[in-house]
Amino acid sequence: MDQSPEFLAQVRLLAEAGRDLSARGWLPARTGHFSARLDDRHIAVTAPNREKSFLDRHDFLVVDLDGHVVAGSEEPAPETFLHIIMYRHDVQLGAVLHTHSVHATVLSRQFPGTLALRDYEVLRELPGVKNPARGLDLPVFANDPDVQQLAARVDAAMTREPNLAGFLIGGHGLYTWGASVELALHRVEAFEFMFQCETLAHQMSR
Amino acid sequence: MDQSPEFLAQVRLLAEAGRDLSARGWLPARTGHFSARLDDRHIAVTAPNREKSFLDRHDFLVVDLDGHVVAGSEEPAPETFLHIIMYRHDVQLGAVLHTHSVHATVLSRQFPGTLALRDYEVLRELPGVKNPARGLDLPVFANDPDVQQLAARVDAAMTREPNLAGFLIGGHGLYTWGASVELALHRVEAFEFMFQCETLAHQMSR
Amino acid sequence: MDQSPEFLAQVRLLAEAGRDLSARGWLPARTGHFSARLDDRHIAVTAPNREKSFLDRHDFLVVDLDGHVVAGSEEPAPETFLHIIMYRHDVQLGAVLHTHSVHATVLSRQFPGTLALRDYEVLRELPGVKNPARGLDLPVFANDPDVQQLAARVDAAMTREPNLAGFLIGGHGLYTWGASVELALHRVEAFEFMFQCETLAHQMSR
Amino acid sequence: MDQSPEFLAQVRLLAEAGRDLSARGWLPARTGHFSARLDDRHIAVTAPNREKSFLDRHDFLVVDLDGHVVAGSEEPAPETFLHIIMYRHDVQLGAVLHTHSVHATVLSRQFPGTLALRDYEVLRELPGVKNPARGLDLPVFANDPDVQQLAARVDAAMTREPNLAGFLIGGHGLYTWGASVELALHRVEAFEFMFQCETLAHQMSR
Repeated sequence: MDQSPEFLAQVRLLAEAGRDLSARGWLPARTGHFSARLDDRHIAVTAPNREKSFLDRHDFLVVDLDGHVVAGSEEPAPETFLHIIMYRHDVQLGAVLHTHSVHATVLSRQFPGTLALRDYEVLRELPGVKNPARGLDLPVFANDPDVQQLAARVDAAMTREPNLAGFLIGGHGLYTWGASVELALHRVEAFEFMFQCETLAHQMSR
Repeated sequence: MDQSPEFLAQVRLLAEAGRDLSARGWLPARTGHFSARLDDRHIAVTAPNREKSFLDRHDFLVVDLDGHVVAGSEEPAPETFLHIIMYRHDVQLGAVLHTHSVHATVLSRQFPGTLALRDYEVLRELPGVKNPARGLDLPVFANDPDVQQLAARVDAAMTREPNLAGFLIGGHGLYTWGASVELALHRVEAFEFMFQCETLAHQMSR
Repeated sequence: MDQSPEFLAQVRLLAEAGRDLSARGWLPARTGHFSARLDDRHIAVTAPNREKSFLDRHDFLVVDLDGHVVAGSEEPAPETFLHIIMYRHDVQLGAVLHTHSVHATVLSRQFPGTLALRDYEVLRELPGVKNPARGLDLPVFANDPDVQQLAARVDAAMTREPNLAGFLIGGHGLYTWGASVELALHRVEAFEFMFQCETLAHQMSR
Repeated sequence: MDQSPEFLAQVRLLAEAGRDLSARGWLPARTGHFSARLDDRHIAVTAPNREKSFLDRHDFLVVDLDGHVVAGSEEPAPETFLHIIMYRHDVQLGAVLHTHSVHATVLSRQFPGTLALRDYEVLRELPGVKNPARGLDLPVFANDPDVQQLAARVDAAMTREPNLAGFLIGGHGLYTWGASVELALHRVEAFEFMFQCETLAHQMSR
């Protein structure tokens, strides 16, 4: 196992994020995947099928940006390739969090294609949103058992929109990221807040 | 009282499950029943009318798979016979959890017969679901003060569908199970997640 | 202040109930009142305007069943007279809990007169309900700044229905009771569970 | 940094309020601003972009009622001017809390202009409400990137209605206040309770 200070520091931050996000109910039944960058070629990523409320360093693999495991004895989860695509796109990107809340799941099923988020003050927390009134169009990708195909669609979307702040996968939750675990966590909070607002507004105003 | 290491280990796991599931609000007002297999002929099961947030070993009975109490001075709750039927069907089955959430209760009343669960990534956590798109038809049995009759209907359903992962009882909540207490807990989480999604989707889209 | 063992034991139980029910969000902004019987002529009752999440013995008064303060230097809250009426009706009655949840408040406003609760397994927790299918008709009284008038209506309802298990006041929450603080707490849980089910079902099926 | 006993006492109370209100989910993603009066010319106010769940004294600035920083090395957040306007209006005012809940945000978007709150017993917690039946009309101001213009509208509203207890900003949450941090917290709780009731009632009865 990797024993480098950077690995130990990053997995501690991800384990803390796991406790926090599990307590909010956004990681039910071993769903979710987390990763953090170790250097320009490597990331630490959660191993498959881990309970996210009590991760420790044995629950993480080190993989390079071609997808090869360099520390850890398990195969990485297929979703690892989605993480890798994001790190390749942006050298500033430090962490990727995939959560699986009720609100994200329901919206991802009811708004295939795009979820429009407008007029929320918290939009200012997200990159590339200067005017909350114009807001953000969050891509919603159809779920696909072939993760490589899903990865190709995410890759194309990130190329079209370099300021992309996150995306949904149908029936499968949210991916978001940031320069650090802490900043990625703020984005999870901002998105989940807007998802809760959107579902509540739809319940009131249909 | 039973003092065997297997009894003590299993009731500790069930007590922990009780604290966890009570904290989520899924066991209000002394509802719910838990059990775990001790060997091929015996199970530990919660005694009647216990508050599930602070169970200890005195809150459990040992019964054999004919329903006779072999340790403990109380009559078992009638629901014990539902548990026994499941252990008889599958020798791999290690634990049964009956929870009583708001979302399970409301769905069990609004969808008598069957609740269809489709296109959820978490369906992969359940046995016999290889394709989330085809999903799962969860049986919903009418509540019946005669537990023996209810047990006969559950027995027939398990015979028809050996991969059955759980069922609802009208106004009365969820039964699910697994090879261990931990795996049964993951299924409770997966089902409750989908129940929350289903109720929220119905609130938004009717 | 009263220093009797019975007073100290009962206020400890009520303080614990206050922490528990506050944590669930059912006692916002200093709402709610609790009481417990000390003997056939006296009760301990919360003094006015207390934050219910950290009560201690200084937050309680002792009043007799005519409403006179016998220990404590404050005037009792007007709602104290509602409590007294219940203790007079039933010598077995050991505790009264008044909570103020969102769900109880909304239902009390939308169903003036009576809230019908049917087909819930938890109805078995309540007195006088042998058949969940027949269920319970919970009285909903209009709020009234004149607590004496409100008390007279409650008195009449308890005379008509000696097995009454609780009632709602419009915009003002739930009153329920039991032979002990613990049993009254179970009834709060059972009622709040059904209130959550009722509001959710109405959101889904209008 | 200010080391006066009054500064240290007030920021401790505000930090505690931050932990409490964050735990309820009312301050997602570094939203919210808090302040407390130090004397007739100065307030302590949260510095920009702080996570509100673990504030300490280094997260606060001291500003005078003209908006000049007198202790602290950062520029105050633009919203600080909204706080200042309130302290100028009322010398009894001791604390201002700005929270950012889902329910407040959704209502502020669906009821531009005014939110009518009627027939809630908790209205008695608010200033100037003697009769819950007549209730309270809560102003809802459109969000405005120009905080000075927003401040001018708030100023006019407080002049027209000296008993004003709070207001909403579209997509941006609640401002409320009180003679102390504790009393302002009670008002946050009372408002959020009514916001939850209002959204639930709209979901049930449209």
